[in-house]
Amino acid sequence: MKFEIMRERLLDGLNDVMKAVSSKTTIPILTGIKLEVTEQGLHLTGSDSDITIQTFIKAEENGEQVIRVIEEGTIVVQARMFNEIVRKLPTSDVEIEVNEQYQTHIRSGKSEFHLIGLDASEYPLLPEIQDDRQFVIPADLLKSIVRETVFAVSTSESRPVLTGVHWEVKNGELVCVATDSHRLARRKTTLEQLPEGEYSVVIPGKSLNELSKIIGDSSEPVHIVMTQQQVLFKTSDVLFYSRLLEGNYPDTSRLIPNEYKTTVTVNGKALLQAIDRASLLAREERNNIVRFSSLEGNVVEISSSSPEVGKVEEEIQATSIEGEELKISFSAKYMMDALKAVDGQDVMVQFTGAMRPFILKSVHDDAILQLILPVRTY
Amino acid sequence: MKFEIMRERLLDGLNDVMKAVSSKTTIPILTGIKLEVTEQGLHLTGSDSDITIQTFIKAEENGEQVIRVIEEGTIVVQARMFNEIVRKLPTSDVEIEVNEQYQTHIRSGKSEFHLIGLDASEYPLLPEIQDDRQFVIPADLLKSIVRETVFAVSTSESRPVLTGVHWEVKNGELVCVATDSHRLARRKTTLEQLPEGEYSVVIPGKSLNELSKIIGDSSEPVHIVMTQQQVLFKTSDVLFYSRLLEGNYPDTSRLIPNEYKTTVTVNGKALLQAIDRASLLAREERNNIVRFSSLEGNVVEISSSSPEVGKVEEEIQATSIEGEELKISFSAKYMMDALKAVDGQDVMVQFTGAMRPFILKSVHDDAILQLILPVRTY
Repeated sequence: MKFEIMRERLLDGLNDVMKAVSSKTTIPILTGIKLEVTEQGLHLTGSDSDITIQTFIKAEENGEQVIRVIEEGTIVVQARMFNEIVRKLPTSDVEIEVNEQYQTHIRSGKSEFHLIGLDASEYPLLPEIQDDRQFVIPADLLKSIVRETVFAVSTSESRPVLTGVHWEVKNGELVCVATDSHRLARRKTTLEQLPEGEYSVVIPGKSLNELSKIIGDSSEPVHIVMTQQQVLFKTSDVLFYSRLLEGNYPDTSRLIPNEYKTTVTVNGKALLQAIDRASLLAREERNNIVRFSSLEGNVVEISSSSPEVGKVEEEIQATSIEGEELKISFSAKYMMDALKAVDGQDVMVQFTGAMRPFILKSVHDDAILQLILPVRTY
Repeated sequence: MKFEIMRERLLDGLNDVMKAVSSKTTIPILTGIKLEVTEQGLHLTGSDSDITIQTFIKAEENGEQVIRVIEEGTIVVQARMFNEIVRKLPTSDVEIEVNEQYQTHIRSGKSEFHLIGLDASEYPLLPEIQDDRQFVIPADLLKSIVRETVFAVSTSESRPVLTGVHWEVKNGELVCVATDSHRLARRKTTLEQLPEGEYSVVIPGKSLNELSKIIGDSSEPVHIVMTQQQVLFKTSDVLFYSRLLEGNYPDTSRLIPNEYKTTVTVNGKALLQAIDRASLLAREERNNIVRFSSLEGNVVEISSSSPEVGKVEEEIQATSIEGEELKISFSAKYMMDALKAVDGQDVMVQFTGAMRPFILKSVHDDAILQLILPVRTY
């Protein structure tokens, strides 16, 4: 194996696959990344066995020669070390050569590294995925969907299935739900290209967070393929595989109230900032609870107190408050997470009483729904 | 006490004094900052008992009213909380009012905080400093002097005096020396305003690092006053006090060789980058040692190896190599620190043999001298 490559392009590819490599893996070969060069270009693969990322760098792009392939071949090199070396090489070109015994030579200018590589045939194969259950979402929309739901997954392993986001394709719609049993985030998306059949999977929250870092903010299509054990996200140059979580995801639809006694319409950003300030004192008490009260004249009061530090009161002018008077307490963190997911717009908060779950959504549409359980304080 | 202040100006002042406040202090009142408002303006004071920082915000500046003083007074408030509150307040103006029982009210727009303050009379007084031993250095030069020496202080408490930088004023010159007994950094500065007498102090490295963060990059004069126990750095709006280290600083002048057997002149940046790359492999071995060899044709070879990972060789074209052939090994970290202090220029490295300390300085002047002890490797 021997080839020359533009250093910047190799770095871009490494940036992506490095996100799958974990230093904590128990499988030694997974501390490495696999390089496979053919006449067409270079495949880089990284994996922590939960997530596998493969990128492809084309030998020629827009008439520009990115890679000069002298001899095809494949090798596994220690990922962190290889990445740091390439990052610090002195010139814009890199030559990589592997001889017998997996000795890997990396040359750039007058700098020459000799790394001890590993046999690529010992590197795990990519999961086999058939393309039958496939649908397409633009990259930027996919990132929004992840951002609006993934924060609500459980961080506790006591119910592993809740550490993932439930993705369900049904009636031409994708419904994504995450809950840690104290709050819930739901995002509905109409799919342009109607997939056949119904299917649902639970994707680990961690995988979705990593996916978000890799896909761009463009409207480039991302092909999504679901199988029994794996989900694959495909862009033009990246394959992102994640294992799925096993177990039945709970039916969350019955958690969402059907009728409401108080509806507050308010600017989401103003409410977010007021709760952010109130939580400064609430945090001192460990529970991070703020109080929300409806006052006369469409005013909402946000308050919190800490016996040792002091207290805070905030008034926010709401657009409207309809229905019963209300005093309720909830986690400042959950409310701030929910408001960030709904993103600055005017929001509608609907309550069914001080001890019942309440929901939050944009005044413009129902695509995003956030549900929070209140906290008893007296 | 009652006053209104422009939020941005209060934040700037807090930014400075917060650098002296430590959450790890054993003196409860030092978790707070002291506010003292008079007709002239607001004094803010923060301290961890080693470092004390006081800033002054003038009530009026360039005809603009920054502070409206309604009632003079003084209070101590919990530093971290007060700082975060001011940072998050909704409008550009803040009203602060203290009533009996040290209740402190912070108002901005429709947001109102009530903090439990502390009696300012319990806050330690500033050290008393007489202005007789004073000299002046421009702020940007002071920052350079700190940057070029402070990294070489010892991090071990086994000889506490070595955790500071030795500042000696003598014959119209300031000589700053730091050493951890494996390497040494020395910076000489000619003082424009000749101070009277000779004096020397040892300033804790930590204090100098914090000082660097506070003083600007301008040529504004910084007045430096040294006493037996304290040093004071004074700019137009900040007073920075640091305690001094006790004990005799060792005489380091005899460490610096008088004659050299090999002199290498080389671009500092090229050498720095080569050692940075070589240290990627050297780090794996914990000792972080690289080899430096003079070759034919004014070439320097930098190399290192790690049995488990591999090896690296780098060649650098030197401007000149004079004297005996040389192979020497040293800490990559120490060499990189020294090269960064000399800052990108062409450097002269002078050796007296593979087992003797060597020095590094700019080809242009002797103001900065870096000394490193080599490491035996065979």
